[in-house]
Amino acid sequence: MIDVQSLSDHRNINIDKVGVKDIRYPITVMDRNNGVQHTVASVNMYVNVPREFKGTHMSRFIEILNEFHGNLDIREFSTMLKALQEHLQAESAHMEMYFPYFIQKHSPVTSSPGLMEYRCRITASLDSKGYDLIVQVDVPITTVCPCSKEISDYGAHNQRGIVRLAVRFKRFVWIEDLVQLVESAASCDVYSVLKRPDEKYVTESAYENPKFVEDVVRDIAYELKNDPNVKWFLVDVENFESIHNHSAYACIERVNTPPSQPV
Amino acid sequence: MIDVQSLSDHRNINIDKVGVKDIRYPITVMDRNNGVQHTVASVNMYVNVPREFKGTHMSRFIEILNEFHGNLDIREFSTMLKALQEHLQAESAHMEMYFPYFIQKHSPVTSSPGLMEYRCRITASLDSKGYDLIVQVDVPITTVCPCSKEISDYGAHNQRGIVRLAVRFKRFVWIEDLVQLVESAASCDVYSVLKRPDEKYVTESAYENPKFVEDVVRDIAYELKNDPNVKWFLVDVENFESIHNHSAYACIERVNTPPSQPV
Amino acid sequence: MIDVQSLSDHRNINIDKVGVKDIRYPITVMDRNNGVQHTVASVNMYVNVPREFKGTHMSRFIEILNEFHGNLDIREFSTMLKALQEHLQAESAHMEMYFPYFIQKHSPVTSSPGLMEYRCRITASLDSKGYDLIVQVDVPITTVCPCSKEISDYGAHNQRGIVRLAVRFKRFVWIEDLVQLVESAASCDVYSVLKRPDEKYVTESAYENPKFVEDVVRDIAYELKNDPNVKWFLVDVENFESIHNHSAYACIERVNTPPSQPV
Amino acid sequence: MIDVQSLSDHRNINIDKVGVKDIRYPITVMDRNNGVQHTVASVNMYVNVPREFKGTHMSRFIEILNEFHGNLDIREFSTMLKALQEHLQAESAHMEMYFPYFIQKHSPVTSSPGLMEYRCRITASLDSKGYDLIVQVDVPITTVCPCSKEISDYGAHNQRGIVRLAVRFKRFVWIEDLVQLVESAASCDVYSVLKRPDEKYVTESAYENPKFVEDVVRDIAYELKNDPNVKWFLVDVENFESIHNHSAYACIERVNTPPSQPV
Repeated sequence: MIDVQSLSDHRNINIDKVGVKDIRYPITVMDRNNGVQHTVASVNMYVNVPREFKGTHMSRFIEILNEFHGNLDIREFSTMLKALQEHLQAESAHMEMYFPYFIQKHSPVTSSPGLMEYRCRITASLDSKGYDLIVQVDVPITTVCPCSKEISDYGAHNQRGIVRLAVRFKRFVWIEDLVQLVESAASCDVYSVLKRPDEKYVTESAYENPKFVEDVVRDIAYELKNDPNVKWFLVDVENFESIHNHSAYACIERVNTPPSQPV
Repeated sequence: MIDVQSLSDHRNINIDKVGVKDIRYPITVMDRNNGVQHTVASVNMYVNVPREFKGTHMSRFIEILNEFHGNLDIREFSTMLKALQEHLQAESAHMEMYFPYFIQKHSPVTSSPGLMEYRCRITASLDSKGYDLIVQVDVPITTVCPCSKEISDYGAHNQRGIVRLAVRFKRFVWIEDLVQLVESAASCDVYSVLKRPDEKYVTESAYENPKFVEDVVRDIAYELKNDPNVKWFLVDVENFESIHNHSAYACIERVNTPPSQPV
Repeated sequence: MIDVQSLSDHRNINIDKVGVKDIRYPITVMDRNNGVQHTVASVNMYVNVPREFKGTHMSRFIEILNEFHGNLDIREFSTMLKALQEHLQAESAHMEMYFPYFIQKHSPVTSSPGLMEYRCRITASLDSKGYDLIVQVDVPITTVCPCSKEISDYGAHNQRGIVRLAVRFKRFVWIEDLVQLVESAASCDVYSVLKRPDEKYVTESAYENPKFVEDVVRDIAYELKNDPNVKWFLVDVENFESIHNHSAYACIERVNTPPSQPV
Repeated sequence: MIDVQSLSDHRNINIDKVGVKDIRYPITVMDRNNGVQHTVASVNMYVNVPREFKGTHMSRFIEILNEFHGNLDIREFSTMLKALQEHLQAESAHMEMYFPYFIQKHSPVTSSPGLMEYRCRITASLDSKGYDLIVQVDVPITTVCPCSKEISDYGAHNQRGIVRLAVRFKRFVWIEDLVQLVESAASCDVYSVLKRPDEKYVTESAYENPKFVEDVVRDIAYELKNDPNVKWFLVDVENFESIHNHSAYACIERVNTPPSQPV
């Protein structure tokens, strides 16, 4: 049979990314407390196509995914990208994985156990400039509005927010550590199970610790810009305002420079 | 050309609904304050197909939609369904429209104007049993947790919730009236624009009026079960809990019976 | 601390469903070929609240979910519902789980292995009328349009469709069997990996077997209405038409009656 | 009342973007054929917050949106951004609008009229480096697979795809022109209403004109890289493969350089 994709192309245009998108796949992720964890990912895989070739071979992407048996070790990403480069004869290879990750967390007073879901995204690229890896985690939080607390005789509006933290780092980081960093910047973190003594604690703690979206991104940025392991970060916060039908939003992106230089 | 859809079918099976789904269409909706309002709908249109026929003619659905020029008057729905029955030679016809509807609303203290969006769904059917119309409106609200308020020395967790109210009624009702009914059952309603004096008012009002999801559905059901214009209703509330990453939920569905009978 | 939820309520209104919604949870599902399979579910859990009580205890839902450790065996659903009834002192209990399920499938000619995702929903209720269980599976398929094939000199428009099949049955059924039933009613089933000889086979097979949405629901209904193990079914098909920006849709719902009676 | 947001901040960190997100708002868009068109947008509005200030005033964003009465003229975006800069005392201002846009389109043979929806996104920024505007339009298309056609004795798999084209240009462009550019690069464009003679035409035209995702992005890039009015573009195509449950994808992003230089 003729291999149409390998024919030459006359338009003289390189394509940045060609591949497969929205593949659902069961994967195994490293888990700090339990060794590994089973979850399900949405996967995108791309390579570049140089101007000479008409197209790429889509079935090979899935074959490479199958070869790795869905055992997703962050440290294996560069191996998978190399396999993409080789099997598809490409200069650059890209991979994105989006998956829920679960961490057991105990409630703050009664220590009742519950599972929290944190959605993660790993974006990896390999090309002539080298290997690039971004780890992102989405962390739900509670925020109490400082303005509402200040101007009101009692109460303060509060709501669930979501923090998206994406990081380029030098040495390996655990998802658990990124989650903890974000949760410590909230008015209070959220839980799966809260009994009444826990609910009292969470309510009062959050009220004592009001934060705007501006405060949350700044507190997280403050930690990260001084972390020598962090090369780059992007953090944003979206508050699903309880008093509005829209969100409040704040975002900081930084390339980390040596501490002596201005931010 | 052969008309494949009009061929006879041997499987001897009636099809309940056949048609087109997820058509996006600009429409005009009746607006109590401004006469009409322009918005954009997602539209589904179906008819039954009796066992004798192989299929229906999908293009005619869109032609009928075009004939009505997108002027959506709730009172015109039965006319559109009759047109579907006739042009598609069907016994039953169904139509669903889902669209955002906007109402200007002033903040409670400074009277600052803002537009609130309420998502609406109209479901209409016409068959041998007659004409059936359901009007649904989704209303965002604020709820303060009564338990959290009661057990905490200060503060109380609160969050945005969404109330979905669907009603079968005897005489025409305005979307505006359904919205008002729902908002009056919340800890406080939500607004587009709130200046500081408004925010103080909203915070304190909500704190003075704590409600569980159970309270919100019951308060709305209490009004509707005594309304002689209401034949049936379904109300549910979903609270996007600020202290959890999941929702709290409550739902009541009722066929209204004469007031003397038990609910 | 006061137990606000256990206070009595004056509005005299039963609530049909109260509980927790959109909990994400890792689960283990029975797998015909591999014994069990790890996946991630979205879970809703509800009970009724009688008129005497102000509310329910939301944290107990999560505790019951934790007790079952996420080991989801369809045969264990009634046990979980009984636990909900008892721990929440309710007359009726409801549980919904929505999760991706993976089946290894080989391509039709080269027998290349690949994983297919099928989204499943299990809905279970237990009340004074007994136990009710619905198993739903969403199956992607290919459909070739019979009209397009008939009237065109060459080619025929085709597209991906999604079949949703929900069944109430007498004895246990495997998800794998429901998937197979649906796939056999398509113009052709879809695959994860297709090499060129496979692609030729799939293209020609589908072209030889054109089907309207009407045909697909009828062929599935034909099998199910004669299956003595099936008490009820609802099947719908949505075709993401390649020549339009909307979908074609068909739906059949049936309570199975003895074969001698009319459908 | 104290103005908490205007207090000074000690963390010494600039915030890139602070504002409101997911506001739904009815707007009026310029329409080449009809003057204006009514639709509904999702709107995000942000400003930077310099290190000295604790936060911004969220209610002012909505007030500015209200001042413009939702009359969205692409040529008015810079005026709105200047208003944001001034009222919020910011150096940079950002605005994103996402909305459906409708164009009447006649079927290719019978000339039956129908409305096509194209989702648009306008992203605009104003800062010390100047004014930046990106217009994006999402265009549904049909693609026939060249490989499937080549290797099969009859038929060829085809499917709906979506092209996202984003452009920075020198002088104003009409949404209609971007749509036309994309549709001319498809195997065939899609329609709202197709009668049988139209369906025959569309089926045969698409079959005669098979295209990979690679071909579609290249053909669009070929036109744009030689257009002196285009400063930058990003085009991607996602094919909802009819033979798989995942998508095929291709993407090209280019800064246009003078024609004499290599691409």
